[in-house]
Amino acid sequence: MTNQSREIPYKIYLEESEMPKQWYNVRADMKNKPAPLLNPATHKPMTAEELSQVFCEDLVKQELDNDNAYIDIPQEILDFYKMYRPSPLVRAYCLEKKLDTPAKIYYKFEGNNTSGSHKLNSAIAQAYYAKKQGLKGVTTETGAGQWGTALSMACAYLGLDCKVYMVKCSYEQKPFRREVMRTYGAAVTPSPSETTEIGRKILAEHPGTTGSLGCAISEAVEVATHTEGYRYVLGSVLNQVLLHQSVIGLETKAALDKYGITPDVIIGCAGGGSNLGGLISPFMGEKLRGEKDYRFIAVEPASCPSFTRGKFAYDFCDTGMVTPLQKMYTLGSGFIPSANHAGGLRYHGMSSVLSQLYHDGLMEAVSVEQTSVFEAAEMFARVEGILPAPESSHAIRVAIDEALKCKENNEEKTIVFGLTGTGYFDMVAYEKFNNGEMKDYIPTDEELEAGFAGIPRFEGNEF
Amino acid sequence: MTNQSREIPYKIYLEESEMPKQWYNVRADMKNKPAPLLNPATHKPMTAEELSQVFCEDLVKQELDNDNAYIDIPQEILDFYKMYRPSPLVRAYCLEKKLDTPAKIYYKFEGNNTSGSHKLNSAIAQAYYAKKQGLKGVTTETGAGQWGTALSMACAYLGLDCKVYMVKCSYEQKPFRREVMRTYGAAVTPSPSETTEIGRKILAEHPGTTGSLGCAISEAVEVATHTEGYRYVLGSVLNQVLLHQSVIGLETKAALDKYGITPDVIIGCAGGGSNLGGLISPFMGEKLRGEKDYRFIAVEPASCPSFTRGKFAYDFCDTGMVTPLQKMYTLGSGFIPSANHAGGLRYHGMSSVLSQLYHDGLMEAVSVEQTSVFEAAEMFARVEGILPAPESSHAIRVAIDEALKCKENNEEKTIVFGLTGTGYFDMVAYEKFNNGEMKDYIPTDEELEAGFAGIPRFEGNEF
Repeated sequence: MTNQSREIPYKIYLEESEMPKQWYNVRADMKNKPAPLLNPATHKPMTAEELSQVFCEDLVKQELDNDNAYIDIPQEILDFYKMYRPSPLVRAYCLEKKLDTPAKIYYKFEGNNTSGSHKLNSAIAQAYYAKKQGLKGVTTETGAGQWGTALSMACAYLGLDCKVYMVKCSYEQKPFRREVMRTYGAAVTPSPSETTEIGRKILAEHPGTTGSLGCAISEAVEVATHTEGYRYVLGSVLNQVLLHQSVIGLETKAALDKYGITPDVIIGCAGGGSNLGGLISPFMGEKLRGEKDYRFIAVEPASCPSFTRGKFAYDFCDTGMVTPLQKMYTLGSGFIPSANHAGGLRYHGMSSVLSQLYHDGLMEAVSVEQTSVFEAAEMFARVEGILPAPESSHAIRVAIDEALKCKENNEEKTIVFGLTGTGYFDMVAYEKFNNGEMKDYIPTDEELEAGFAGIPRFEGNEF
Repeated sequence: MTNQSREIPYKIYLEESEMPKQWYNVRADMKNKPAPLLNPATHKPMTAEELSQVFCEDLVKQELDNDNAYIDIPQEILDFYKMYRPSPLVRAYCLEKKLDTPAKIYYKFEGNNTSGSHKLNSAIAQAYYAKKQGLKGVTTETGAGQWGTALSMACAYLGLDCKVYMVKCSYEQKPFRREVMRTYGAAVTPSPSETTEIGRKILAEHPGTTGSLGCAISEAVEVATHTEGYRYVLGSVLNQVLLHQSVIGLETKAALDKYGITPDVIIGCAGGGSNLGGLISPFMGEKLRGEKDYRFIAVEPASCPSFTRGKFAYDFCDTGMVTPLQKMYTLGSGFIPSANHAGGLRYHGMSSVLSQLYHDGLMEAVSVEQTSVFEAAEMFARVEGILPAPESSHAIRVAIDEALKCKENNEEKTIVFGLTGTGYFDMVAYEKFNNGEMKDYIPTDEELEAGFAGIPRFEGNEF
């Protein structure tokens, strides 16, 4: 460790006065804009009016805004951010020492809030705009429960109703997540349920099904569009979500700038892309504007490899095929990762923004197997003292790999990665790993082809 | 909210350079020192030599040191502290607004680390001194699991073996806690077990027993004293633990001083006293030296009311009656709180230091019932965004009560309380509360008398 690096504290916290007051919209600086959402019936771009039947008005504006680079964060959201932000940018001194690497490793830790992840950054924004529009409540789906918890917290704070459709197997296997949401006043329904038409239909066709994210989305959308004063909200994938999550990257950049640090490589896990997109946005902006260059690495599970093995095509956002079509890297809306896959990052598609950036060669992607992810997680937990979420640990794995390359090549690179959350509710997966019972799974080409077969084919959607 | 208070940020973080470099030993400023530990056979004060058979040498010195007010924190411990400290002192703006009180409320939040509580502050210290002594490992017991988790983390960091005896019912009911400890490399054994003489004896006498903290202590002590290179460590009650935990109070005081804030009342939950003692120590020092005056309030569960209904007497620290005798407020070492009591704070006794201070009228104590505690917890979670541990919520309850009194009397008092940890592993209790199934229980005088009957009677131990 050089003297210079010694001056960097373990944790860099911004002052409240240094917190970002605007979100950054990377689309404004993209030469190739992300493709618009399409109406699945007409294959024409979705209008604001069409989208406003499902989403809040201000959020629709943000979803469609490819021009404004900076968007003011409303004071009420800034006040809420102050409850748990700024999040620390941590210098991983102990991990560096353990790896004996000349690399300098930093991580932006988003787990220091009760929802346990970065999801709260967008949850409060979406709840705020719903409240502003005079709505009574919002609906959403949740799988593992991070997003549902975040939205419950935001709604409790603003006094909004919150209806969460939770995938039935998660509802039963993760009762603690469910109870956190209930403690925040949310109504949590196992999906599929008897409360919706589509739920009843699915239950009739598949009695005993334990549900899926796609089915939960369909139920949440149905309730939102059929209930006066409700709209549907989503925790990832959408442009608006990446916009809100830019607060992660803006804080990271401000903290690095404060100490004159320029990262060489920035790494994040990618499920729907909300964390990665938020983390890299302001850095990507510099790259797009030709001001600086960085390497960006998206890390995804080998069992759900949207970027590395998917198709860049228009596809449905849900398995129920009720949503608009989105141009993205996709495994097909019917693709479901192997049951032995632990943790999140199970989404078949990917943010349009990130998909376009990847397609344009501005970003790299790698896939990693889960046992190697949990090995990295355990090493990290023991030396850095934070028990990471399985999702976040994908980024840890690749950050460690990059740091080891630096050791091999004796390069003093600066690596920044996003530590999106904590693993307190993922101990079943850790137990499997601790007992040596965790297996890896890489889908075969045939399995992927079966998924691709579900991607709609129409003129202009060649892939 | 006045303009003045607006200038106080939501979270006051100290700089790394402002972190305490010494622990503060409140015993040095006490006119009436806490009574010494007694050998249960001879009723004579335990010597350093006797104590060193069970505890690490440096820790024995700290245990017996009533004179030195400041003790240097070794650099290795300071480095570990930097991984998760300084902890934030939070201005509870949202809670104040919700209560519509003129009171200013602050809380010192110790839950932002993977062990989920303040216990890590002493765990790393005790593990460090064990390592320094050249020991191979340490043993301990854990009930709910916070202490065991903290010790596992500290031992993983230092490369020490860690054997945890976990009360069998917790081991079975809290598998996630157990897995966190295993992830940090600890060997976790459900107690009573076949691995110790006392465990085998208890199992033979009470087949099917689900264990108790007292039994787990006995097993951990037996293993420590019968295994070459091992010592026993304890997470609360002891003088040394209060010394280490003084880091909480020192940081709190430094943060308040930075903004020129003087608290009127300082509140903490009290089980064995580690958090409360650590939080109030430097403030109590000022009071003992006649420099300032503060109100201190210990909050305990009505179902385990050591301070408010216990006897001030010499008693055993464990139910197995193998430990030295300690002068403290006690319900008798055989006292076990009602099975419907949720969360920690189940200990029959109390820190000697706090017991003496309470006995001398320097501190107040109140007991609260658990449904009112969970009501406070839920209100706090919804407005402040942190899901508190049930233990911590005892302090929240009384902080709210004090703030409401301020409202009634239109007093602008400053209230500081200790938020010791998070409730992620306590969702079974929250579920009971959410379902309206939580009951209160106040032990009858007869039940308490039965506990008192177990307190040893000898000359000089009148109560």
